[in-house]
Amino acid sequence: MQGLSCGTSNIVGVRFAIYPMADNFVEIIKGALEEVDTSKVWMQTDDVTTCVRGRSEHVFDVAKAIFIHAAKTGTHVVFSGTFSIGCPGDSEGDTYMSENDERLNEEKSQQESVEAASHFALYPMDNPNYMQVIADQCAVAQEHGTFTKGVHYASRLDGDANKVFHTLETAFVNASKTKERAHVTMTAHISANSPSKKDNAS
Amino acid sequence: MQGLSCGTSNIVGVRFAIYPMADNFVEIIKGALEEVDTSKVWMQTDDVTTCVRGRSEHVFDVAKAIFIHAAKTGTHVVFSGTFSIGCPGDSEGDTYMSENDERLNEEKSQQESVEAASHFALYPMDNPNYMQVIADQCAVAQEHGTFTKGVHYASRLDGDANKVFHTLETAFVNASKTKERAHVTMTAHISANSPSKKDNAS
Repeated sequence: MQGLSCGTSNIVGVRFAIYPMADNFVEIIKGALEEVDTSKVWMQTDDVTTCVRGRSEHVFDVAKAIFIHAAKTGTHVVFSGTFSIGCPGDSEGDTYMSENDERLNEEKSQQESVEAASHFALYPMDNPNYMQVIADQCAVAQEHGTFTKGVHYASRLDGDANKVFHTLETAFVNASKTKERAHVTMTAHISANSPSKKDNAS
Repeated sequence: MQGLSCGTSNIVGVRFAIYPMADNFVEIIKGALEEVDTSKVWMQTDDVTTCVRGRSEHVFDVAKAIFIHAAKTGTHVVFSGTFSIGCPGDSEGDTYMSENDERLNEEKSQQESVEAASHFALYPMDNPNYMQVIADQCAVAQEHGTFTKGVHYASRLDGDANKVFHTLETAFVNASKTKERAHVTMTAHISANSPSKKDNAS
């Protein structure tokens, strides 16, 4: 019984949903899922969200692929979720940690060109220097060329979905390395094909 | 210049979006907004999310009302957002803190009966006892009768939307009182009218 003590693995998870703003949303979600290889992650869906867990690279690989294959339909689609590492007690699913690091969906995702806009926020838990951790990762996003600006409670990224996810993954992984057994979460709203005017003036 | 130091007010904010899974999503969102009085909050929308800020009670009043009036259409609608208090440097909008505590939308929201399911997570920042803060608020949700179960990275609430929002607001406000000038965030996915089978077996 671990109680509130730390888990033993570096398992990463994301709890998210894909929201296609269309009458045929079920079809779009199922269609995207059919194009994504999820064999290297633990995955569970209920009526509110989906949870994907495993090695960091596979969690991001699967999350990105589902978003891209849903968004390439041209429908206004949003990915909204929270990534997590180091959550106390998180260990079920450890068997997925023995997978190798070859990403199963990367090649197919890279073939698509989807313009994405994201608001994301990092939450390094139990860390007095958390604001600096966040600032450092916004600087990384600036180096990537995806950072647009800070907004209340979040930072905005714009660009090709592959690049936006690359920044999110890098920021998350970097933040998780700033402290031993760090518990870090990251929220991200990622939107494609919105009919609203982009607010990406920096 | 405040830099990374604390803001001076207890202003609360939420960055969220409403996702109606329907071709007429713009109409549903605009229709809901027309029914909601937002005069006591600071509000800004861009192409990714909407940000509402002000006194805690008005932020929750407005967020709930927008969700309920969108969901009462019968369309599968999701509210997804992050509430925040004590965010370092958050002060713009302080004028809204002088509003009185009378909720402008409560009466109308209470007239609607919308069944909601929510996954929520509390993030008390820079607090070594954060897991206990979270556990205490899950206990509060159990007292409210809205708590269904813990899921990976979140807790599940079920019930009438007015009750679910009441639990969310109580948990958030309680958590923000566990430390002086606490910085606390809370994510919530709240779903109504999903065609998926409810997973609310506790």
